[in-house]
Amino acid sequence: MPELRKDPTTETWVVISQERSKRPSDFKLPKETKTTGANCPFCDGNEDKTPPEVYAIGPPERQPNTPGWSVRVVSNKFPALRLEEWTANGGLEVGGFELAPKMPGFGAHEVVVESPDHYATLASHSQEQLDLVLKALVSRHRDLAGDNRMGYIQIFKNWGHLGGASLEHTHLQIIVLPRTPMVVAQKLRTAQDYFRRHGLCLYCDLIKFERDNGERIIEETDHFLVFAPYASRFPFETWIIPKAHQHSFGQLTDEQSFDLSGALKRLIRRLELTFEDLPYNLIWQTAPYGPGYEAYYHWHLELLPRLTLIAGFELGSGYYINPTAPEAAADSLREAPMALALVGANHGKGD
Amino acid sequence: MPELRKDPTTETWVVISQERSKRPSDFKLPKETKTTGANCPFCDGNEDKTPPEVYAIGPPERQPNTPGWSVRVVSNKFPALRLEEWTANGGLEVGGFELAPKMPGFGAHEVVVESPDHYATLASHSQEQLDLVLKALVSRHRDLAGDNRMGYIQIFKNWGHLGGASLEHTHLQIIVLPRTPMVVAQKLRTAQDYFRRHGLCLYCDLIKFERDNGERIIEETDHFLVFAPYASRFPFETWIIPKAHQHSFGQLTDEQSFDLSGALKRLIRRLELTFEDLPYNLIWQTAPYGPGYEAYYHWHLELLPRLTLIAGFELGSGYYINPTAPEAAADSLREAPMALALVGANHGKGD
Repeated sequence: MPELRKDPTTETWVVISQERSKRPSDFKLPKETKTTGANCPFCDGNEDKTPPEVYAIGPPERQPNTPGWSVRVVSNKFPALRLEEWTANGGLEVGGFELAPKMPGFGAHEVVVESPDHYATLASHSQEQLDLVLKALVSRHRDLAGDNRMGYIQIFKNWGHLGGASLEHTHLQIIVLPRTPMVVAQKLRTAQDYFRRHGLCLYCDLIKFERDNGERIIEETDHFLVFAPYASRFPFETWIIPKAHQHSFGQLTDEQSFDLSGALKRLIRRLELTFEDLPYNLIWQTAPYGPGYEAYYHWHLELLPRLTLIAGFELGSGYYINPTAPEAAADSLREAPMALALVGANHGKGD
Repeated sequence: MPELRKDPTTETWVVISQERSKRPSDFKLPKETKTTGANCPFCDGNEDKTPPEVYAIGPPERQPNTPGWSVRVVSNKFPALRLEEWTANGGLEVGGFELAPKMPGFGAHEVVVESPDHYATLASHSQEQLDLVLKALVSRHRDLAGDNRMGYIQIFKNWGHLGGASLEHTHLQIIVLPRTPMVVAQKLRTAQDYFRRHGLCLYCDLIKFERDNGERIIEETDHFLVFAPYASRFPFETWIIPKAHQHSFGQLTDEQSFDLSGALKRLIRRLELTFEDLPYNLIWQTAPYGPGYEAYYHWHLELLPRLTLIAGFELGSGYYINPTAPEAAADSLREAPMALALVGANHGKGD
């Protein structure tokens, strides 16, 4: 029986399609072939192939833009938005006619190279390495949030060809937008409305609801819940949410960072064991710059496997069709048989 | 210089990225290979491979579900939504908790096979054939609109692998939804707000604005304007809109239908001449069932070439990055050199 489910955080309806019910082996994925890293601008030794770095983690004696780094953040060589547009346009004013509004392309676009290793994946990093990546993101988030001309920091990762990755060396991206974008505004509105009606955080309640229910939970750590959301838009969609109320990713503590790096590494490993060459997007959803969101918003990560295509129906209506019920997806990922054994060696606070 | 543009009909912001500026030859498209039609359920003679037809155009002596049809509409074999869910669930009630709302998967899902020819494209149909396809859509639209349990009729076409087509024989799809979907609701809100402020139809004003401006127009026919929208989300995105105010596709007259079939055929031909194996989605945007939308809404078609991927930034923010300015896209399509010569033979009201 097909069922329509509404995402309580966005009010998006999703068709959970049992007629088209799909297990992991029913999905056909194109094979991804990796080239060598010789000309890769993100490889160790090729630092001159990128714009100058804005942040790096490495030994104290290392000079900027030289080898030896562990995590490196650079401006995007082909930025979607640029800081220079502010001075070039004398600020950020909406111009144009009512039927053709425009703003200068002001903002920032950075790339976070997660490791010098060309063949690394989010799951192959050591937990310590992934912890450094998260610390680099938090540092960039805090630094960029100091610029009050900005509105929102969108952190994301595109992985695999269908995930939109144009460079194969593992990296994340940060795009800073002058305004709060529509998807985030919708999440904020829904959470604010819930808070007005109940005096409670929608996401804190959602965590309780999912823990009580249990069947969509993939893993629970000291600080995070990893679960397949009730109205998953994509098969095997998974969210990671801090169990303590926290509106912004910029608030991540060192203890949370290490815990999250383990949870994220194990989630990706479970997906890698379930699918060969899975394309995916990893999206940060956090509060915009500035005060006002503390009580009702709650940041989280969305892992969106790209096993299905966004086509005419989705683009025309905003509905999604998901052929794998999130309860079945959580089951598969929980049981990804080798996952715990293989990842276990790198897991735990003692190592 | 990157520029941020807002779609006046949806309030979606788009980055028109000059840094990444792309002409047609800059896009790399995967080669599409067509198999033979021997086992194709949409080919003439294979009528028993589909669910029974709900509508067909053919000679009067033809029996249903036999060869000889020109256009054939059948229920989708793997429907996203089903009529049977109404009786199975005793109607359409929102159930579940506030954090997990659900409805029965009630609705309908039909397939419109545009031609018995396995190798046809929207552009290779004769104008008369495409006119029959549009007439079949109007007929289904009017018929389905008689069921007041329904909310919205989404007509769309997925073409090519990246466009989401799972069967290669050219076809359209109709999904009938129990509620007005989010994308349509947003368009309605924006148009209603414009009407409140100006007492005018947003889309009628947009048509005047685009005609006065001229640089985004690809073609103007007796009844339709074909143009690249100001805030195109996708490179070479093109809209077709009736010049007379009309809120619903169901109002299409015979004269408009023939004119639209020519405009659509020529648009697809221009795209075929510009790109080899272009995947695309074609989306109908029309008013929901029922009264109340007549004054302020205005139906239109959106042709969305899938040259770029919807990735982490788009999914996280709702912004799109478009590397081809619509003015440049309109220029290319207007000038698609062979287009008029080749299509001319099939064009004009006299043939």
